[in-house]
Amino acid sequence: MTQRKGSPNAVDRLLECIDEKQNPCIVGLDPHLDHIPRHILKGIKRNHHPFEAVRDTFITFNKAIIDAVYDVVPAVKPQIAFYEKYGSEGMKAFEETVRYAKKKGLIVIEDAKRNDIGHTAQAYAEGHLGKVQLTDGTWRPSFDVDFMTVSPYLGSDGLKPFEGVCKKYGKGLFVLVKTSNPSSGELQDRVIKGKNKVYETIAQYVHDAGKDVVGKRGYSLIGAVVGATYPKVAKKLRRMMPQSIFLVPGFGAQGAGGKDVVSCFNEDGYGAVVNSSRDILFAYRRELYRRKFKPKDFALAAREAALNMREEVVKNLKQCGKSPL
Amino acid sequence: MTQRKGSPNAVDRLLECIDEKQNPCIVGLDPHLDHIPRHILKGIKRNHHPFEAVRDTFITFNKAIIDAVYDVVPAVKPQIAFYEKYGSEGMKAFEETVRYAKKKGLIVIEDAKRNDIGHTAQAYAEGHLGKVQLTDGTWRPSFDVDFMTVSPYLGSDGLKPFEGVCKKYGKGLFVLVKTSNPSSGELQDRVIKGKNKVYETIAQYVHDAGKDVVGKRGYSLIGAVVGATYPKVAKKLRRMMPQSIFLVPGFGAQGAGGKDVVSCFNEDGYGAVVNSSRDILFAYRRELYRRKFKPKDFALAAREAALNMREEVVKNLKQCGKSPL
Repeated sequence: MTQRKGSPNAVDRLLECIDEKQNPCIVGLDPHLDHIPRHILKGIKRNHHPFEAVRDTFITFNKAIIDAVYDVVPAVKPQIAFYEKYGSEGMKAFEETVRYAKKKGLIVIEDAKRNDIGHTAQAYAEGHLGKVQLTDGTWRPSFDVDFMTVSPYLGSDGLKPFEGVCKKYGKGLFVLVKTSNPSSGELQDRVIKGKNKVYETIAQYVHDAGKDVVGKRGYSLIGAVVGATYPKVAKKLRRMMPQSIFLVPGFGAQGAGGKDVVSCFNEDGYGAVVNSSRDILFAYRRELYRRKFKPKDFALAAREAALNMREEVVKNLKQCGKSPL
Repeated sequence: MTQRKGSPNAVDRLLECIDEKQNPCIVGLDPHLDHIPRHILKGIKRNHHPFEAVRDTFITFNKAIIDAVYDVVPAVKPQIAFYEKYGSEGMKAFEETVRYAKKKGLIVIEDAKRNDIGHTAQAYAEGHLGKVQLTDGTWRPSFDVDFMTVSPYLGSDGLKPFEGVCKKYGKGLFVLVKTSNPSSGELQDRVIKGKNKVYETIAQYVHDAGKDVVGKRGYSLIGAVVGATYPKVAKKLRRMMPQSIFLVPGFGAQGAGGKDVVSCFNEDGYGAVVNSSRDILFAYRRELYRRKFKPKDFALAAREAALNMREEVVKNLKQCGKSPL
């Protein structure tokens, strides 16, 4: 049940997909009922719980988006909060989204920011990245993703169970290091007496933890979330964690552009995946695309937005002499 | 849909339940398949996903435990990781457990350690503590709990959406401040230059955030997770957050005893709930109870263990002149 010898691990597969699509940009699958075109909103059926209608709406919407972008992007990043909001029915939409994305050859990065210790962390890790042991055998978990984001407040006890499962099954993590939000500095930028800043302490941990799980291409299974909204910090962190892939949020809606994300990449042009969620998913509502695409063509609008994002990021990488793509 | 005027909020209801049961100890509902008595393990049915059998097993087990302890403890604390491990079917067991516990008059503290920013944090908060807006109305969420634990690495952007929902609906939070695990100090004990330790910075935030959501009994909706394994730290934090309820893990299995938890309480004998999970749930497997209780009497063993825990904690509180119970 452990990773088959010779089968590529999650980070090597991610890098292959980046090469294949010539694209380090990914799409965040964060469905919002308010923004989904009216024609695919499923009505509430008699005798059904209303969240079943949400589940069906999300599945229809996400499949259309995946069909439109699977040959453009290497990976998708569903944010589990938007599914969890609707309880177990929402979780079913999450499961079906993951299954469908993988069937289309996409890498799935689950944004869950889970964190706990001991048996509890082990339960999260097995249920999202590993295998689940029952009395009569071992099963793939329902949330069977390639990567997951995790939060580091609990210290190494809170990360090691996740690392162990990743090592065993060839899956990957992105540890929150420096996040993209305005108040991220309240804790993360604090200087620890006689040491570095909090985010540097976490970065050092991520680098060390990744050393013995490096794939064929020189990148480790232990990545880092580094916001594109703080490019100077990103540059420093890039040097501190040369073997970690950065998961970079904050592109588009959160204010960071193509220039800002360049510092998250290594000189080899790899080392980062840049996420955009709303700006791609709901491109049909944006000024830029509204005239060209009707709501019923929301998936085509998403595809065009994804192509435009690739162009912008790759252009900026090339201008800095960083892209091998 | 906001909290009805005059209806008690979560923290006042928790304190009422503590008075009624004369008990500040709570039971963690963390089901482990390996430890559940064989006679209630549900077999995997033909044409059914195996996780449906896990779901049914957990529901049967949890209901038996709740039936055995609901008149002894004020609250239960299900750890969502143990349900999430089994995907959407596990989540159904979580939903049913929450529903049943509330029906029995118990306060439900969801241990989820969720954390995110902006819309995403809002989605978590609405889906666990608030209400969910659909196109045709507002609905109770499937995970409709009284309190939830949250993790503070993202700074105030990551906490404010949760606080807003709590204020609106009279629900409560427990923010991770100083956790019970051995490596908690790696980040939480670090001294910030010119300031306090990391956990003190978070404690200060929790205290300030709670000031405008104080209930009738003088305690705020914003509580703190403070491990019983570091009693000196707990004593200091008790002074820093006088109006916050402490959720205290680490009793029993993690090594803290009745003496250790006393420092988490205020002089009035309130201010903390002490959790034990495995030692209560699976008491029938412990040396102390194994002779008296057969596996089929696991729920009676859990009840006796819960009564013994109450006795130990209340005795220690009285010895320090702290208990009004």
